[in-house]
Amino acid sequence: MESQQEHKFKVIGTRPIRHDGVDKVTGRAKYGADISLPGMLHGKVLRSPHAHARIKSIDVSAALALPGVKAVITGADFPDIGDNLVQVGENFVNARHLSQNIMARGKVLYDGHAVAAVVATSPHIAEEATKLIKVEYEPLPHVQNVLTAMKDDAPILHPALRTGGTPEKSDKQTNVANQVRFARGDLAAGFAAAAVIVEREFDTTMVHQGYIEPLNAVAQYNQDGHGTIWVSTQGPFAVRELTGHILQMNRGDIKVIPAEIGGGFGGKTTVYLEPLALLLSKKTGRPVKMVMTRNEVLRATGPTSGSHIRVKIGANKEGKITAAQVWMAYEAGAFPGSPIGVACMTVLAPYDLEHLQIDGFDVVLNKPKTAAYRAPGTTNAALGVETVVDELAEKLGVDPLEFRRLNGAQEGTAQPAGPQFRRIGFLETIAAIKNSPHYQSPLPKSENGKLRGRGVASGFWINAGFQSTATVSINTDGTANVVTGSPDIGGTRTSCAMIAAEVLGLKAEDVHPVVADTESIGHTDTTGGSRVTFATGYAVYEAAQDAVRQLKERAATLWKVKPEEVVYQDGAVSCTTNGNESLTLIQLAGRLPRAGGPVTGRASVQPRGVGPAFTTHVVDVEVDAETGKVEILRYTAAQDVGKAVHPGYVEGQIQGGVAQGVGWALNEEYYYDENGILRNTGFLDYRMPTCLDLPMIETILVEVPNPGHPIGIRGVGEVPIVPPPAAIANALYRAVGVRMTELPMSPPKVCKAITEKRG
Amino acid sequence: MESQQEHKFKVIGTRPIRHDGVDKVTGRAKYGADISLPGMLHGKVLRSPHAHARIKSIDVSAALALPGVKAVITGADFPDIGDNLVQVGENFVNARHLSQNIMARGKVLYDGHAVAAVVATSPHIAEEATKLIKVEYEPLPHVQNVLTAMKDDAPILHPALRTGGTPEKSDKQTNVANQVRFARGDLAAGFAAAAVIVEREFDTTMVHQGYIEPLNAVAQYNQDGHGTIWVSTQGPFAVRELTGHILQMNRGDIKVIPAEIGGGFGGKTTVYLEPLALLLSKKTGRPVKMVMTRNEVLRATGPTSGSHIRVKIGANKEGKITAAQVWMAYEAGAFPGSPIGVACMTVLAPYDLEHLQIDGFDVVLNKPKTAAYRAPGTTNAALGVETVVDELAEKLGVDPLEFRRLNGAQEGTAQPAGPQFRRIGFLETIAAIKNSPHYQSPLPKSENGKLRGRGVASGFWINAGFQSTATVSINTDGTANVVTGSPDIGGTRTSCAMIAAEVLGLKAEDVHPVVADTESIGHTDTTGGSRVTFATGYAVYEAAQDAVRQLKERAATLWKVKPEEVVYQDGAVSCTTNGNESLTLIQLAGRLPRAGGPVTGRASVQPRGVGPAFTTHVVDVEVDAETGKVEILRYTAAQDVGKAVHPGYVEGQIQGGVAQGVGWALNEEYYYDENGILRNTGFLDYRMPTCLDLPMIETILVEVPNPGHPIGIRGVGEVPIVPPPAAIANALYRAVGVRMTELPMSPPKVCKAITEKRG
Repeated sequence: MESQQEHKFKVIGTRPIRHDGVDKVTGRAKYGADISLPGMLHGKVLRSPHAHARIKSIDVSAALALPGVKAVITGADFPDIGDNLVQVGENFVNARHLSQNIMARGKVLYDGHAVAAVVATSPHIAEEATKLIKVEYEPLPHVQNVLTAMKDDAPILHPALRTGGTPEKSDKQTNVANQVRFARGDLAAGFAAAAVIVEREFDTTMVHQGYIEPLNAVAQYNQDGHGTIWVSTQGPFAVRELTGHILQMNRGDIKVIPAEIGGGFGGKTTVYLEPLALLLSKKTGRPVKMVMTRNEVLRATGPTSGSHIRVKIGANKEGKITAAQVWMAYEAGAFPGSPIGVACMTVLAPYDLEHLQIDGFDVVLNKPKTAAYRAPGTTNAALGVETVVDELAEKLGVDPLEFRRLNGAQEGTAQPAGPQFRRIGFLETIAAIKNSPHYQSPLPKSENGKLRGRGVASGFWINAGFQSTATVSINTDGTANVVTGSPDIGGTRTSCAMIAAEVLGLKAEDVHPVVADTESIGHTDTTGGSRVTFATGYAVYEAAQDAVRQLKERAATLWKVKPEEVVYQDGAVSCTTNGNESLTLIQLAGRLPRAGGPVTGRASVQPRGVGPAFTTHVVDVEVDAETGKVEILRYTAAQDVGKAVHPGYVEGQIQGGVAQGVGWALNEEYYYDENGILRNTGFLDYRMPTCLDLPMIETILVEVPNPGHPIGIRGVGEVPIVPPPAAIANALYRAVGVRMTELPMSPPKVCKAITEKRG
Repeated sequence: MESQQEHKFKVIGTRPIRHDGVDKVTGRAKYGADISLPGMLHGKVLRSPHAHARIKSIDVSAALALPGVKAVITGADFPDIGDNLVQVGENFVNARHLSQNIMARGKVLYDGHAVAAVVATSPHIAEEATKLIKVEYEPLPHVQNVLTAMKDDAPILHPALRTGGTPEKSDKQTNVANQVRFARGDLAAGFAAAAVIVEREFDTTMVHQGYIEPLNAVAQYNQDGHGTIWVSTQGPFAVRELTGHILQMNRGDIKVIPAEIGGGFGGKTTVYLEPLALLLSKKTGRPVKMVMTRNEVLRATGPTSGSHIRVKIGANKEGKITAAQVWMAYEAGAFPGSPIGVACMTVLAPYDLEHLQIDGFDVVLNKPKTAAYRAPGTTNAALGVETVVDELAEKLGVDPLEFRRLNGAQEGTAQPAGPQFRRIGFLETIAAIKNSPHYQSPLPKSENGKLRGRGVASGFWINAGFQSTATVSINTDGTANVVTGSPDIGGTRTSCAMIAAEVLGLKAEDVHPVVADTESIGHTDTTGGSRVTFATGYAVYEAAQDAVRQLKERAATLWKVKPEEVVYQDGAVSCTTNGNESLTLIQLAGRLPRAGGPVTGRASVQPRGVGPAFTTHVVDVEVDAETGKVEILRYTAAQDVGKAVHPGYVEGQIQGGVAQGVGWALNEEYYYDENGILRNTGFLDYRMPTCLDLPMIETILVEVPNPGHPIGIRGVGEVPIVPPPAAIANALYRAVGVRMTELPMSPPKVCKAITEKRG
């Protein structure tokens, strides 16, 4: 394949039907909870009713006495594994914290924290038995506000956590687990050069990924020390790694079989039930299934961080930003590990800045441990920067898109974290919105007296590369199979098949994609970071090239020429030195038994040419000033998608991301009462947008090929969630004249802000 | 790895516990009939009660009217696919014949021939429904004796089958489907030079593979034209190929998932239920399970050929064979395709012959179509040659082992089919038996007046290579996974894992073997022909070397040296140019994320260096002259096993092959009545040996490395079945003085022979 610029793709860019479509629409696809094994038991978890409490005692005798109950485990059943960091792909996870998060030791740290798990012959008996476990708690003061948690006199969650990170450096107990700073230039000089400075503070609450399918795990421990786990997960290799460390088993002795996955959005990248189920299976000698309720999902699994953010940006009269300062405190939940690091890397990255300072704080408090959620940490941060930028533009009398064009990052711009961007398409997304039918049309007047406004905002996401493996094998009928280790959460079976089809000169339908278990394919990092079509696709591309190399060798054997004399093009081999020799892949596949045997290509990659994602959104809103209800009238997102492998799926990713961003902007929030108990633990009270809340999201695919990928692919799945809260806040300002600085912009808050403004 | 001669193996030759052991002994391993899917239906087959009849009409209306019945199929539901030969690996199969064998068209050709299939909500309803199908038959004359079937006036099974093979060449109808001849030298001159000539005729009946697990298939046809089949099979890729041709589906659109397999012995290398189940699933839109009863297995699936064999061998006074002539007619069953070809290649191969002629005939008759059975066709043939050789030795006054040593094939000997042997270990097996404790001990006298005798016989099997694929991936903990496409019928998961462990310097337990489905691994031919440890093991060896190459590259990246400066030995990389740099595989595996990413090796091979197998057996028998019952007192088999990867499994293969050979020799037979109906359709009447019928089989592993394999591996699984009938016949002669020429040597026949001899 020549360089991407000149190449006319035949499969890339088309919209074939997804390979797993029939299975999914007919209900045949197997999700984690669909797995059943002979003799299987069912496990249930007893969870803390306190936000923070010491566990004085646990008496499981009555539970064990209930007929049908086979075993009970508590924190005492888990090995003590120290504070070692476990490498999961290119990330590091504190396995001890993770182990304590999935089963409390000594203290409970949040409402919903697991205290014990019961396994019984039915899920109902197991649930009854959890109620028979007697736990004596000593309630402790709790803290749930990130700024309060940072104070010197705040209740301390982890006595061993000290300022500076280690007991050696300081003996001061703290809830601040980590601190990040990026700085460049002379901040004071920058602000001194500004004609206008805007400074605001923002608050956002925890929100949940809200995947349809609750967490689950089926585990079987064999007498030979091997374990198998069937689970809906974004990262089967991470499940193997983490479960192995938590239970102190060899990772190679654990086989993780990824089921279909009913949504993840980052929330299914760690473990909750897997080690419990495997340990219960070990204790009972029988397979164990565990499935969470929605209550458990919301109380005890990965929301994303709430945050407190301060943004100060100055610009000169020409509209050029002279300095920017951001201070962010992110809720990690009960254990260290918010996405503050990546938030600091992304928050100012869309702009070309000479003087900047970014400070980030990772803060533990008595809420569930956060997990990744689509562009982790970046939506909160963008709310701050993109609304302040809007205000600056307004004050300078500059069109907000023009302001962004003037300051926008482009090829060669240095990111806050240091590296320069290669070719990116931020400015192109601004232009695309500017020229869009949506932006070019005036905002339609309301006919019911409600107030309307139009807002824009941009977004950046760093995207990930990491490690992937793929094999590509040729079938006897000239079709091909692609095996990867990347669970398919957004159509990546098809995008991987399309990449192989492009290289091999086949139709997408003639390539059969398989998502394999952790023993059947080489190491592959988690589906996340918008990395699958980029990195696993890269592995597929290389594996297909490896297959092509061998196909040329086979043809050379048939024709008794050198492999260099054979070319492969458009699904056929031909001989350069003898023009008459030519075989289609179908013909060649049938002759492989006479040419040296079958062909399988493989590649394990760790591609470094990750292409970041930029996007610009425009939204029209209508506000009911009486109730504070905000309605989305029209929404258009323009995104640099590199090369869109399957444009339909790219559009779907954009629409899905915007929908989640709208929910985050307007309604979703973790609502804790004064005792630190989560009050909205179901989808009736935790209000996610439905299709009735949204217009059709319009999408504009801007294709600026990623120079770091042979097909030009960039990750596309996460960045769409970044601008919506800011874009809606900006639109809301144009409608009602108030600048919202708190998420969600729910009716009570909007109503209050309008009332306050009107006096 | 250096050349095999000098290499000290660390894993090869040891006896680790089998990786699938716990699953199998605890009942967790999933066999075909263990598969169940939601909404699954159950299918049953209606079978012919006639040996040969025209189908005048089939009325399925009453069956369809039975509540619970969802569909009925007959021959009319299958596409007409012509006489094209389908390539399955390196073999060719007539797909039309195969299609007609699994569902009759117009005529039934044997008792048990499938006529219709019913699918219903339960297997019981399906079975009831088969009884409601009204089939009007016009019985035709049948033929079940191979010599009768060859006669001009025999009832003809296939009107289109003509002498010479095609209608163009001849218009004479025939049951002789194929004819083979190997000839060399001057037969008349050879016999003229003989001092002694022995000529005898032999008859053997059909015998069944007798696997424990009946045939089964679960199939699901999807609305997008794709199908999935779960089945206990030796050849998932063959199932895909054959089912695709029979149903005229793209092979790539069919995914075959091999279940565990409860014995196959060659009998599970073709299809019976798979296309029926998939077609019924297509008709009903629901998954369909079909499982045969033992009655169906015996009546309608792959026994091996009965045969009529004539052997004439002459030898001079020095004991050197001067000429050999063999004439063999093999029962193909109702459709062409006995193992006559390979029988002709193997029958005289153990001997170094100047003058020879071998004629073979493939004959159709009204019995089930034969399938492969352990060293197909060779046991029948060896009965003839090895008993005639025994008689020649006796007449010349030469020790039978010495006679074989004098005439035995060795390196450079030309096979009857032409090619010269490379290094083989036939003479070594003769010497091993000669020096064995068994042969060196005198035959113990009987204390009950029964007659005893000791016999020897040798055997040869050609072994197969064909095509295999393997991948080897490195886990993050430095262990490895091996993926192959070879269903494990004899411990090959472990032998493949051991080969990878040897190359990688790991323990066998640290390599996790996986048998994958047809989409998850590249093309791999059927488990059969004693090829898996040889050929799939070859692919594993090469894939592991591919992984080692990449591990050296990764280490070179870490150390900033060239890959050529890195050596891999004993599970560790070290730098040749900087003696301080060294990493174990465990250490290196942990650093791969910083060294270019994970490592997966792959190889698709078609190894040409197949090493044939030779064996020599000695057996002591005791004969009850009153009843004709033969008891096996002691049995020792010495076999050239190349390099025994797992000696315990090799011994198991030898013991299993001898056990099956003893059953064939003494008891097993297909017993048809005068109407051509099989009368012994269960294991109570079809008499296989039990452990009470056998002593512990003693084994001697002779290791003459195969020069065509990097580890010296030869196939070991089939040849052990070849000598037992001949060895037992020779022992029986020494005991009671009669030369048996008919299998089985069952009590009535032995009794009759003794009575006739005694007058």
